[in-house]
Order: sequence, then structure tokens, then C-alpha cells
Amino acid sequence: MVFKPTEYLPYDFANRRHIGPSPAEMSDMLKAVGAQSLGALIDDTMPAQIRQKESLDFGKPMSEREVLEYMRVVAGKNKVLTSLIGQGYHGTVTPPAIQRNIFENPAWYTAYTPYQPEISQGRLEALLNFQTMISDLTGLEVANASLLDEATACAEAMTMAMRLSKSKAKAFFVDRDCHPQNIAVIQTRAAPLDIEVIIGDPDKMDANAVFGALFQYPGTYGHVRDFTDHMTALHDAGALGVVSADPMALTLLKEPGAMGADIAVGSTQRFGVPEGYGGPHAAYMACKDAYKRAMPGRIVGVSIDAHGNRAYRLSLQTREQHIRREKATSNVCTAQALLAVMASMYAVFHGPDGLKAIAQRIHRKAVRLANGLEEAGFKVDPKSFFDTVTVDVGPLQAAVMKSAVDEGINLRRVGETRVGISLDERSVPATIEAVWRAFGIRRTDEKFEAQYRFPDDMLRESAYLTHPIFHMNRAETEMMRYMRRLADRDLALDRAMIPLGSCTMKLNSAAEMMPVSWREFSMIHPFVPQDQALGYKHMIDDLSAKLCDITGYDAISMQPNSGAQGEYAGLLAIASYHRANGQGHRNICLIPMSAHGTNPASANMVGWKVVVIKTAANGDIDLDDFRAKAEKHSENLAGCMITYPSTHGVFEETVTEVIKITHDHGGQVYIDGANMNAMVGLARPGDVGGDVSHLNLHKTFCIPHGGGGPGMGPIGVKSHLIAHVPGHPNGGEGAVSAAPYGSPSLLPISWSYCLMMGGDGLTQATRVAILNANYIAKRLEGAFEVLYKGPTGRVAHECIFDVRPFEESAGVTVDDIAKRLIDAGFHAPTMSFPVAGTLMVEPTESETKAELDRFCDAMLAIREEIRAIENGDMPRENNALKNAPHTVEDLVGEWDRPYTREQGCFPPGAFRVDKYWPPVNRVDNVHGDRNLICTCPPMEEYAEAAE
Amino acid sequence: MVFKPTEYLPYDFANRRHIGPSPAEMSDMLKAVGAQSLGALIDDTMPAQIRQKESLDFGKPMSEREVLEYMRVVAGKNKVLTSLIGQGYHGTVTPPAIQRNIFENPAWYTAYTPYQPEISQGRLEALLNFQTMISDLTGLEVANASLLDEATACAEAMTMAMRLSKSKAKAFFVDRDCHPQNIAVIQTRAAPLDIEVIIGDPDKMDANAVFGALFQYPGTYGHVRDFTDHMTALHDAGALGVVSADPMALTLLKEPGAMGADIAVGSTQRFGVPEGYGGPHAAYMACKDAYKRAMPGRIVGVSIDAHGNRAYRLSLQTREQHIRREKATSNVCTAQALLAVMASMYAVFHGPDGLKAIAQRIHRKAVRLANGLEEAGFKVDPKSFFDTVTVDVGPLQAAVMKSAVDEGINLRRVGETRVGISLDERSVPATIEAVWRAFGIRRTDEKFEAQYRFPDDMLRESAYLTHPIFHMNRAETEMMRYMRRLADRDLALDRAMIPLGSCTMKLNSAAEMMPVSWREFSMIHPFVPQDQALGYKHMIDDLSAKLCDITGYDAISMQPNSGAQGEYAGLLAIASYHRANGQGHRNICLIPMSAHGTNPASANMVGWKVVVIKTAANGDIDLDDFRAKAEKHSENLAGCMITYPSTHGVFEETVTEVIKITHDHGGQVYIDGANMNAMVGLARPGDVGGDVSHLNLHKTFCIPHGGGGPGMGPIGVKSHLIAHVPGHPNGGEGAVSAAPYGSPSLLPISWSYCLMMGGDGLTQATRVAILNANYIAKRLEGAFEVLYKGPTGRVAHECIFDVRPFEESAGVTVDDIAKRLIDAGFHAPTMSFPVAGTLMVEPTESETKAELDRFCDAMLAIREEIRAIENGDMPRENNALKNAPHTVEDLVGEWDRPYTREQGCFPPGAFRVDKYWPPVNRVDNVHGDRNLICTCPPMEEYAEAAE
Repeated sequence: MVFKPTEYLPYDFANRRHIGPSPAEMSDMLKAVGAQSLGALIDDTMPAQIRQKESLDFGKPMSEREVLEYMRVVAGKNKVLTSLIGQGYHGTVTPPAIQRNIFENPAWYTAYTPYQPEISQGRLEALLNFQTMISDLTGLEVANASLLDEATACAEAMTMAMRLSKSKAKAFFVDRDCHPQNIAVIQTRAAPLDIEVIIGDPDKMDANAVFGALFQYPGTYGHVRDFTDHMTALHDAGALGVVSADPMALTLLKEPGAMGADIAVGSTQRFGVPEGYGGPHAAYMACKDAYKRAMPGRIVGVSIDAHGNRAYRLSLQTREQHIRREKATSNVCTAQALLAVMASMYAVFHGPDGLKAIAQRIHRKAVRLANGLEEAGFKVDPKSFFDTVTVDVGPLQAAVMKSAVDEGINLRRVGETRVGISLDERSVPATIEAVWRAFGIRRTDEKFEAQYRFPDDMLRESAYLTHPIFHMNRAETEMMRYMRRLADRDLALDRAMIPLGSCTMKLNSAAEMMPVSWREFSMIHPFVPQDQALGYKHMIDDLSAKLCDITGYDAISMQPNSGAQGEYAGLLAIASYHRANGQGHRNICLIPMSAHGTNPASANMVGWKVVVIKTAANGDIDLDDFRAKAEKHSENLAGCMITYPSTHGVFEETVTEVIKITHDHGGQVYIDGANMNAMVGLARPGDVGGDVSHLNLHKTFCIPHGGGGPGMGPIGVKSHLIAHVPGHPNGGEGAVSAAPYGSPSLLPISWSYCLMMGGDGLTQATRVAILNANYIAKRLEGAFEVLYKGPTGRVAHECIFDVRPFEESAGVTVDDIAKRLIDAGFHAPTMSFPVAGTLMVEPTESETKAELDRFCDAMLAIREEIRAIENGDMPRENNALKNAPHTVEDLVGEWDRPYTREQGCFPPGAFRVDKYWPPVNRVDNVHGDRNLICTCPPMEEYAEAAE
Repeated sequence: MVFKPTEYLPYDFANRRHIGPSPAEMSDMLKAVGAQSLGALIDDTMPAQIRQKESLDFGKPMSEREVLEYMRVVAGKNKVLTSLIGQGYHGTVTPPAIQRNIFENPAWYTAYTPYQPEISQGRLEALLNFQTMISDLTGLEVANASLLDEATACAEAMTMAMRLSKSKAKAFFVDRDCHPQNIAVIQTRAAPLDIEVIIGDPDKMDANAVFGALFQYPGTYGHVRDFTDHMTALHDAGALGVVSADPMALTLLKEPGAMGADIAVGSTQRFGVPEGYGGPHAAYMACKDAYKRAMPGRIVGVSIDAHGNRAYRLSLQTREQHIRREKATSNVCTAQALLAVMASMYAVFHGPDGLKAIAQRIHRKAVRLANGLEEAGFKVDPKSFFDTVTVDVGPLQAAVMKSAVDEGINLRRVGETRVGISLDERSVPATIEAVWRAFGIRRTDEKFEAQYRFPDDMLRESAYLTHPIFHMNRAETEMMRYMRRLADRDLALDRAMIPLGSCTMKLNSAAEMMPVSWREFSMIHPFVPQDQALGYKHMIDDLSAKLCDITGYDAISMQPNSGAQGEYAGLLAIASYHRANGQGHRNICLIPMSAHGTNPASANMVGWKVVVIKTAANGDIDLDDFRAKAEKHSENLAGCMITYPSTHGVFEETVTEVIKITHDHGGQVYIDGANMNAMVGLARPGDVGGDVSHLNLHKTFCIPHGGGGPGMGPIGVKSHLIAHVPGHPNGGEGAVSAAPYGSPSLLPISWSYCLMMGGDGLTQATRVAILNANYIAKRLEGAFEVLYKGPTGRVAHECIFDVRPFEESAGVTVDDIAKRLIDAGFHAPTMSFPVAGTLMVEPTESETKAELDRFCDAMLAIREEIRAIENGDMPRENNALKNAPHTVEDLVGEWDRPYTREQGCFPPGAFRVDKYWPPVNRVDNVHGDRNLICTCPPMEEYAEAAE
């Protein structure tokens, strides 16, 4: 019998797995929003003049299985050798319990940044552990919750030192023994800020000529030296001293704090996070207590909740979410939360004894390696080292390197005549013997009496990781349960929609995530010979080509490892372009009021002046104001930074005019890619007239947010800017990140996404993202006012609900609504951005109609609760909104509220059996900022709290 | 400076990760139990005469990293080809979301069998989905929650038919087109039961000569035929008809129920569970409603809880946990829960449309393949097929097979002149072309009009998977959240100790689990040429050698895939041995009263008569009774089955005497290995005098329980029994499992465990398991009486607490205590085994002192609660014990109880913030058994419940 095959396509990832609404649901939703079809909705929403002409075509989309098989083939092109290159990246052993229960667990990797502390207590605790670990190891009072990478942390330390220094000098001293990528990123950062970077021998530093200095510890070629005298000299001159330190070495060696350092930075990569061809890893920063309020990045602090119970939160949060625009000196707003959590768990897993034992094993092996080389007549440097030595082999450098590769070992090329060798946690006797063989030495590695190869006075004297958390029973059973308990305290995408406007919290599918764990991607050092990373090359080339197709740009740089880094890199390219055209004086950047705070901060970082453009009544850029200011600054106009669709959730019709004005005045156009999820397949920033954009791969391209990082912010540029894109010391000039390709081990995620979606799937995702937003806007119509809409009454992929009137009518703030949504089992929408007192909702295409409805039900019920207050049926100061979120503790205790337990805990939208219970009541922000506690509280406090 | 390395060994898996108590904790615990040292405790506990002479030596233990690297090397010895062998095993695509969120998620894999329904609602729902899926696909009213494998399911169907049949015949008809392994296992099972197995052409079956018949559908060589007439004939003769059906084929083809079949069995392997060289996979059984109470295995049913809310539970549970000993006809007590959950999620993921589309794709490809062969002049059989055909190639069989292997394809050898080809979900055009090339055909696979190659009247007419759960939105976001919600409803090892006596719920470490997911282990068909499974061979050989060392036996068979299957296989070996010695008449088996219920059931299955031995006052085997009964049955004594240490948790001093008596009377000794965790490294059953034992790899050797399976029950035998151990049609005679090595893809777990623990580590684990049990016994002393102790007052690795007196003193039952422990966040200990009304506690070595203390705190508080009832301070019928477990619903509603909410919900031991909340109140067992509902209730019922 002839038959008609079932129309259902079981392997259609795009329409069946990634996109939330089913075809039937979509049809209902289109009816609800009053659109004939999805195409009609889009035509209604997006201005015709910006629509792209040709549809995106990436060939036949792959199924999940096909993409995994293809990834396997590509992964196979990477060669996994033992890399002893060092230079800030080391072999490490990820404890399997941490890999499986954190890195591969959606409860951890799909979480958002912990801005809503009540639903983030688990990762906040893990990050507080991280801070405590860093504070202890560095011997400095305060640490932040991670930075992007060691090199950017060095650059941040430089600008922090500049802000804090009492010296009038404009120069910054950099130890010539710093890792080359640290020096490179510092130089990039220094140039636009007119900081002179003096690279030299620390012993020849003129402390009076600098506002600060950075030293590498141990040095990039292995030197272990004491910087105490240098610190004294700096302090005498009113300058600050920074040490970039390897935390593994700090378990044995005198800590920066003991040397008098003001700031310490470094990478925690070797604490259980694989090299990943360069990232992502968590860098750290610690400083003296006096400087804590000047420290960039996120700081987890200890506060109390409404019942006075201990609760964690991000401290000093206002300065971050709302970077002070023109005054900003750092654009840092991403951390590496997931990797910081892993590193902190590595420390919990091993404890101080374990870490010290690991460091001792590394050191002992390095000593044996050095002894063997010396006994064979080689000249080994330095005399005082931890894990790294160099050997002068004269003209045989290439031969030794090659011979090592034949033994399965990558060594480091140092100068013209030396090779560097860094041992690590993975080094075993066979590793040492293989290195020896590369030097022509045949001998067996034998253990002997352990002897430190550094001076006794470099031995660390102070204790570290003394907090009980680092002394918990380290049985895997206990560790697994600890990780589960923390995960359960948090609300992530694996339990509910996270409708955060501008954050694009979409599905991070299992198929996309899996290859990231594969050793062929994870165990590659960033500076391996290129022929060992052909899989990466293939992936980066193909993904770049696809991103060019998507954006309409001519080239992509993968280096920036956050959106803000992307902005910065993009502006650097523009500045370089102007300079090359003899227009180096151009330094005015037009930025609309509604821009992300990172925009002006990035502009400042390249030395530009920010001119703010007003918002028109309809939320668009005020075209008259824009034109007037462009005219006024025509001579010096560097460019403009705009977001499209706007952060008001609207496709502005005027965008082409804005771009034209900018170009007419000689400026370049930066289009912020934060909202790219509303454009893919439908419009291309490059076509619209953008000269450069960054893409948030962690938004539009499915890299999970990891509880506050990792991220990836590659930039696309038009051809005239290609030559001006920041490069890297390992191939190019003017690095912005430590590693040439930022955090490339994440790229399989975005690449798989593109391969499985195909051009049509990506375009459909955009359409459905817009449909989902319009559906919510429609359902909440009448209850909440949508602040801005396009001319046809449509919103783009997100929309702003104006809840400001309720403050007067009912005393209800945006915070109250956000916390009440927790009772219904939702993460709050974005609060007070871009308009104070409002909520911005972005559902993304991955949410189903049922989940959208659950959210709308919750919001509508909240509106009714507000109405009850407005009507006087419920008191203004004691109602379910003010008391939100409700915890189990509320249920257990006395109940004397004007609403029932049931109403308090199970508002519409809340699951019954599967309800998410926040572990704390509303967290007191003021208390937390006033009493800044950024390390784990002492055990006695826990005991008191328990009483 | 010379230094003394830190003594802490960071990579010491045995003492730092697997074993729970830290050295400091152990020292405290030894003090508490009054032992000088761990060695002294063991000397005090274990009779000197059974202690093994030499310590276990497996060389230097590996670290987690080393074992993973070694596993990678071993895995690399397996060659992953595309197997088109069929014969019940097929390529499949495991949806990555299911792999990551279920198979690799400890919340699912560390769960126990859902005997405690209140903490098992998640997996019970998933298993109910499985039953609904099977019931729908087979067209039969009732399905169970999985069986071990298809072959044992066939054998179970045979004995079930025998029990139900009205025919007086003693023969069972088996379609000659059944898979060879199904026939083999049936023959093994039939022999001791004196069932004649008639293998033949169904069309020549004499229905009057048999009590039942089994047909394969589609046949092993591909035939699709209608058995309706055969069913009619069987029914006319009072016999039952069984169909072993491929569930994938059933999405297209007429279902067994529509043919009139009474019972259907089969394997759900191809529903997303990789081949794994033979297992584990979930087999199924379904039957007509009238026969449901005769169906073996576990059946999930729908009941209500104390508040009348819907709750799931295992139905007819009493018949399983307490198999009716002498009367038992099946020893089934393990399911394949984890794999059944995966298969059910595969159906939820694809839905009926998706499954049908997959089946159509398979069929269309098979048709194209067959057309191509036919057009090239080959003779393809059968005419009517679904996915499998055979081709007669005359003398070229070997050449074609070899040519296929060169193309990366395994075909099936059929007879002397034919090859079999089974296509599957993974088959793509390139697969078809590769097969053609193996036949010398060069052609390109092209799609053409789809045409069924089976008669129109074989097309399925009835709907299936109509329940809403199979029509939920199948976006990954929704699926992921569904899996998370179900997982969160359950309490597994990843959250708390599961102190189940006799079940050994120890750590299943992440490092042990990881390799199971690797394709080199998972994507191997069980019947590949041996040179493609050299990694498996290496592992099986080495693990067998280690298990021989551990047990003192001379050989190991890996075939049994559950403990009960191991018992059965072991007894078959003994029976065969007796027959070979002309002692075939020996059929008496002595079994102590305290034995696991599977012991007598297994004895029955080999046709023996069970003689029960009394228990002495001290809990030991009554030696006089044993001696007397051995004397009495001396002539016919087949052997005895004992457990060591006894199920009473004691190392009986008399064990050597019991063994001697048995041997003196010509019997063989079966030592049940359920309690092997108390012996490894300290005593060997083989040395003590056992002739055969099974090992529960899912207890002692770390295979996770998976929520009720998988398991592995390999047997060790003394040399005289080696020749009598059941074999396999693919190498040997008398199979007990479908696959030659049972469920070999689990073996990396047990093997890694041995490699990482080393001999010393394994021995230490045993010691600490005994310490942990004695510590609990000590802490609860005075509050609860330990029923049985050894002569020095010690218990072995578990102990029985007698709570029977509380029934009279306070009206408190063992059930009340078990449910109250849920409030404290614990899974109950084993209830009423081996002594009714008692609790048996086994903490295992993996639990830390802190967790043991938490448990003891909870138990001591319960004792105080009982005392309050005894004192009259609390009513007998309304107290925290009777009302346990407490849910959030209790907190929300009115509270009119004689204790506070706080006391009800947060008894000592309960976590505060991280409390586990059961989703339902106490489940009504009687209601559930009376109203047996074994498929998902219709949607209306959900709606009603919600009102």
C-alpha cells in the first residue's frame, strides 16, 4: 500500500525542540494578538526598509544526532598533547563530581546573575566561598566574585590603582616577567587613557614615576621573588602595588598581602577548570579593605532578610547594574560565575591540606625535572622557582620543541634560545621522563628527599582556608549533597521561564552543551601550535562565516569574552580607523539615554567623551536632538552607539536616519548586538548601516548564563575596519583578552545551535521571539501599560511594563512585584532598566504558550492584588506584595496577616506540588551595603543564627 | 629547604572520596563504640575462623583521573561499527536531553525502588507513563513497570501462561522465528519445571497439545504475520497466546491485543536506550485485564493519600517484597526502572506522531534497501516485513559479511547461506548504500513513493499514546522542566542517606558512572564479532579475576542481570552438577527462615523442594534443626542456601558447621552474596566453604539502583561447577539472560570501583561499613533494641531494630516510624524484613558521621515522640507519627493537631532551608490494591482532582 508519511518531523530541532510554542499554540497566539500569520505579524512589527533581502541559508539543518557526530569529527581534528607551556594556563584535574554535578547540571549552568538574591542563595554561597578562598590565598581582606580573565584583571587593577593612587604620576610600571598577554592587554587599555606603560626589571623601577606597578608571581619564566621592598617603595611614593599571582603557588609561597601588595589578581583556571583553548576561566581580584569600594566586578556580601536571617546578596549592586555612565571607568559587568563556582568547589573538595599537597607534588616534580636537566649539563633558570623553569638550548630551540612534540609534549618557546617548561597537577613521572627525552636525556624519574627550590623566607607562614566550609567532610557523598542543596536553593531555567528583558534567557540545549565537556575541546592550551587546534580553526572559521551572514558584516573577531569587552573592542577599532585616517582627534560619542550602561563606560575606556541623546515621547531616539548634537560635534564626532531594536523594545523607524546623520558627520556607527535575538534572519545590522557590532553569544546564541558568566562577545565589522580590530600577542596587535579567541571552548554551543537551526530555523526563532513578546503584551493589556510600542502598536522581542503608577496608587514598587513573582515561581523581569521603576519582559522563543500563560496569570493576579490595595481592601504596608517572597518559615510561624497562608504562598501561576520555595525572605539591601562582609562569616555566627 | 610532604593524599579515592567518615570522625566513632581500633572492632565482630588469610592485593589503586584515562584506553579497544544485526537489538538515538537529565543525573540514578511511595512520586509517574505506553502499543489493558530483558520476559510469560491456562497440556509452543536467545532462555527455564518446549512453524502448531504459545512479531528474520487465527485456536483449547513484539513496529502494525493475544512481551531498548553490548534495557510485559494479578514484576498503580489526593504507588506490593517463598513461581524482584524511565521519556519526547514517523522512516529505508537488492537480482525474504530482511547469498555468506564489515557494517549470519539486515532509527541513505556495496551493488539511495511492504490488513487501526502526557509540548525547555519536576519529587542518595538494610545504598561516584555514557561502551551490539569487543573482553576478564580474588571462587559468570537471576543460575549449576554425578534425584534445598524471599523462589524455579530451617533464639540458624533436616533428607539433599553475614546482621559463628553438614550429606552450598559488603577483603565465601554465590554488583560494587534497576548478579563458582554454569546461544548452553554478559555496559562502574579502591581500600570500606553500623547501634542503644547481635555484642554491617513493642505501648507501627523519618528527610530503613514489624538499618561505608548522627538524632526524637504517647501526653491516633509524612499542604491548611506545625514538619534531623518536602501525604495501600489502575488516569480525572 502506498502511504503518505506522517508530517511530523521527529528530528526537527528548530521547530520541535528549540522553539517553545507548538504549531497549534502559535496559531492560538496569533489569533490572540490579532495577526493573520506570523509573517503578517513581523511585517507589522519590523520596518520594511531594514528587512534583509535574502533569507539566511546554511543548507540543511542537522539533527541533534548529526550535530554530535559532526562535532566528534571536528573535535578529532584537535590533537590533545600534554601542554607544559604554562604562561598562565596549566593542566588540571576536574574532579568528576564537580564536572557532573555543576558543569553538566542545568540547575547551575542555566541560572542567571544573582541580582535577585532570594532565588540565588545557592550560587551566592558558592561565590562567597570563592571570595573567601581568594581572600585567604592572597592574604588580602576583600575579593570579588571573579573577573573575565587574568589579563583584563591586570588592566582593571591598573585603572583601579590610578583611581586610588595619591601619586600624580601618569605612568604604570609592569614587571617584564609578566605574562605577555597581561602586558598586551594592559597596553591596549592604557593607550586611550594616556597612561604610560613602563615595562622593566622590578629592581630598577622608579617608584616615584608611577601611580602603580604590577608584578607577576611567580614570573612568567618561573622566578619566585619577594616584592616586599618594591611595595614599600611604591607606598612611600603614594603609589599602589599589584601582584598577579598563581593561586596554586600561593598555597606554598608567601602571599601578596604579606608583601604589602594593595591588589592581587590572577586566574583560578588551574583549580579544576580545563584550559579550553583559552577559556572560559575565572580570574580573581582581591584588595585591601580600604580599597574595596573601588574594586570593579561583583562582590557577594552577607546581609539579612526580612526576618533577620542571614542571607547573601550582591553588594554595592547599584554601581554595577547602573554603571554611572559618563563617569564609569570600567565596563565590567560580566563575571565567570560558573567557573568561579567550579574553582571554589575544587578548593572545598581538596581543602587546604589537599591544595598544599597538590602544590607540593607539582613543586617536587619540577625540582626533579630541573635536577635531571642540570645533571645532564643543561643550564636551568631560575634558581628560585615553583613549577616553571626555562632552559637555554642555544640554537637547538626548534629541535628540542619538535622533539618534545614527538614525545607528546608541548613546551614553550622563550626568546630565541630558551624553552620553558611548566609542570602541573597532571604531571606524572612519565611526563618528566618524556621531557628529559626531548632533551636527549634517558633516565628514570625517581623520588628523593623533598627540597624546596626557593628561599626559606619565601615560604608561606599564614594559614588559609581556615573556614569550616573548606574543612567539611570531603567524601563525594557529602560533596554531591552540598552541591545539590545549593542548586536547589536557586531558581534557574530548568524550572521556570526567566523573562529578563535584554538578557535573552533561552534554551541551552543538552546537545549543544555536551561537546564542551569533551577533552578534544577542553584539554587544549591556548598557545599550542596551530596544527594541534585545527578543529578549533574549522569551527571558528565556519561559525564566523555564519555570523557574517547573519549580521551583514565582513569579518568577526572571537576575542572579546563578554558583551562589554565586545563594545570596547569595537570602539577601539573605530578609534584606530579614525587615527589611520588622520582623524585621531575625533572623540565624541553620541549615546541615547536608553542605552545599556556599558555603552558609555566602554566609550570612556577608549578615551571618548559621551554626549547623551534624549528620548522622544514615543521612546525613540529624539531625532532632532541627535541631529543637533551631531552637527555641534561634527568636527570631533567619533561615532554613535545605538541598540537595535531599542532597549525600549521597539524597532525604531528612524534608525536609518540616525545612521545617516552619523556617517554624514564622519562618525562610525556602533550597533549594540544585545537585542540581536530580534533580528537574526530578518535584518542585518551591517545592512542597516552599522560599522561594527558585538554579538552576545550568551544571549542570542545559546551559551548559558552560568549564574553570571561565562559570556562571549565577538564583534563583527565592515571591511574598512578589519585592519583595526584588536589582535593578540600570539598573532596580532592590541589584545583585549588574555586568549586569542576569548573563551573558545564555549563555541561548540553557538555553532551547534546554528547548525541545528539552519537559516530558516534561526529566522523562525526570531519571529517566534517577537510573537511571544507580543502575546504577553496583549494578555497583560489593560492591567499593565506597555510603555513603548511601535507605530502599529507592536513591540519587538521584549517590552516594558510601566508599574510606576502603582507606587502612588497602592504604595507598590517594582521591587514588590518582582518579589511577588517569586511566590508564583518566576524570576523577575529586568527591573528599572532602561526606565527606572519599570519591568522589562523578554520571553524568548523557547518558552511555550503554557509557560507564557502561567506568567501572565501571575502578573494579572498581582494586578488584582494591587487593586485590592487601591480599593482599600488590603493595607498598604502589610499585604502579599510587601511581604513577598513568602517562605516555608512564614507558614510554620504565627500567621497574623490580612490574607491567608494559601493566598500568600500559592498565588496564581505557582505550582502546587512542584512549587519553588525561596530559602530566605526579602533580603535587606541597605543593611548589606552598610555592613560589607565579603567572606564566609565565622562559624560562631552560624551557631548564633541557629540558636 | 628540605621539607616533609603533607600527609594528605589528595587523589586517594578510597579513603577520601568513597569512604564517608574522615579519619578524625572514625576515631570519634571508635571511641563511641568502645573499640581500640578499627582492626580491634573487626576482630571483635567477625569470627576468626572465617577471616581470609591473605589481604587483597590489586596493586596500586588508581586515582579518578587515572581510571578515566585507563577506561579510555580500554574503551578504545572496542570498535564502534554500524550494527544491522537486529535480533532484538537496534541502533537508536538517545535524545541528549534525556541522556543528560536522566541517565547522567544522580537524582534519577541513585534512587531506590519506589517501595516508599511518598518519596517516589516522580519515578512512579514516569513508570506509569511507561506502563501506559506499553499498554497502548500492545493493545492490552495492563502492563508492568518493566522486566529484566526480553528473553526472561518470554520465560516469565511461559510460566504465567502455565499458571493461568485451563489446558491440561504440559507443553509450550515456541515460534521457530523467535529470537534464538528467547528460545534459549525459555528452554533453560522449562527444563526444571518439566515443561516440554515445542519449537516449530506456527501454522503447524497443535493448540490442543500446549498450555500456551509464544510468537515473535515481527519474526527474528523479519516476517510480519498475523497470529489472530493461532490465538483463536489456542483459546479454543484453553491455552494462552503470547506475542513478543517490537514496540517500534507496533506503531505501524496491528497490535497483539487486536490479534487476541493474552500476553505481550518485548524489549523497549530501541526507545532511546543504547545497545550497551547487551544491556541494561527495559523489557516489558502486558496482559489482559483478567490476568493482571498473575503478572510478575512491579506494577505501578494509582491510589490516594491521606488527604484523598491522587498518589502513585507500587500495586500488589506485598506479593513482591515478600515473595511467597515455597509457593513462589517467579523470583523476579528487580526491574529496569532507569531504562524504563528513559524509554517512557523517549515516547513523551517524540509523542505518537513522532514514533510513527520514526517507524515509517525505518520501514521506508528497509523497503528501499530491499528493492535495491531485488533489482540487483538478490532473493530477499520475507515478502512482508517491517525493518528486517534476509538475503540468500549461497556460499558467499562469509564474503558478504566480511565485505560489510569493511564498509563499517555488521550484518547477521543466518543459517549457512543467508545474511540478515535490520535497519533502525540511525540508518541513513549512506547506510543503505554501504550495505548495497557489501553486496557488490553500486547505486545511490533515492527516495521514492512510500509503499508498505506488508499487507494492508496488517496496518494498525487503533490509536495509541492518546493520553495528554504524550501530547505535552515537546520543546526541550518543557521536557527538561518536566524531568526536573519529577526528579525533585523524589528523595535519592544525592540528598540523604538511604539506610536500607540488605540494599547497600552506597556512593555511586561520578568517575565510575562517566564511562557508561561513552559510545565505545554504549554503542556495541551484543552479537558483534568478538574482535570488535576486545575492550569489553579485557574488562570482563580483569573484573572477573578480581571478583575471584575477592570471593575465593574459581570462575565468574557475568550473565545474570539481577541478584535473583544469579541465584537461579547458581542453583542451575548445582543441579547440573548433581545430574552429571548421577545424583539428579537430589531436589531438597534447606533455606533458613530469615532468607531473602528470592531464595526459595529460585529454588522452586529449578524444581527443588524448599525445607525451611528454624531460627535459634539468638537469630542464628538453628543448628539442631539444620542437622536434623539434613539427616532426614540426606539422600535427596541438593544443597542449602544461606546468607552471610546473615540477614539478621550477624556473622554467625556456626556457618562453618552448617556448610560442613551440607557437604557431609552430599549437598552443595549456595551463599547468597547480598551481604558481601560486610566481607570484601576480610572473608571469602569460597574459602568459608561456599560452592557458588552471586554478587549484587548494584549493592557491593557501586552500580546505582536507578530507582529500581538496573542490577547485575554475576555468580562465582568453585572449579567443580565451572562446566555447569549456564552459557549462552552465542557461546555456550543454557542461557539465563538475553545477552551473553547480562548488562555489560554497567561493568565500567564496578571495575572502576575496584581499580580506584585497590585491595586495601576495598577492605577498609568493609571495615568502615561495619563501624558505621555499630556506631548507629550504639547511639540508638537504650532507645531501640537491636534484635540480634553477635556473641561479643557487635553487629555486622547492618542491624535490626525491634520496634514491635511500640505497637502495644503506643499504637505505633513500623510504618509510622518509616513515614516519620520522611519528615526528617530520610528514606526509611528496610521494613519488616527479615522480621515482620522491625527496621533493618544498613548505613554503608559511604555515609559520614554527620549524616549518621542526623539519622540517629531523628530516630531518638521519634523514640521521644513514642514515649509521649506511652505517657499519655499525646493521643494514640492523632500524633506526628500517625500523621506523617507532613506536606506543605498540611502547613497551608487549618491546623488542629495536638502538636505544632514546627514539631510536625521540622523534627530533629530535618534540614531547615534544604528540607525535602514529600509531594503527598501517606499513601493508602489498601485503596490502591482494591482499585487497580495501572495506566495514566484520563485527563478528566486530573481536572476533577484540581477542582
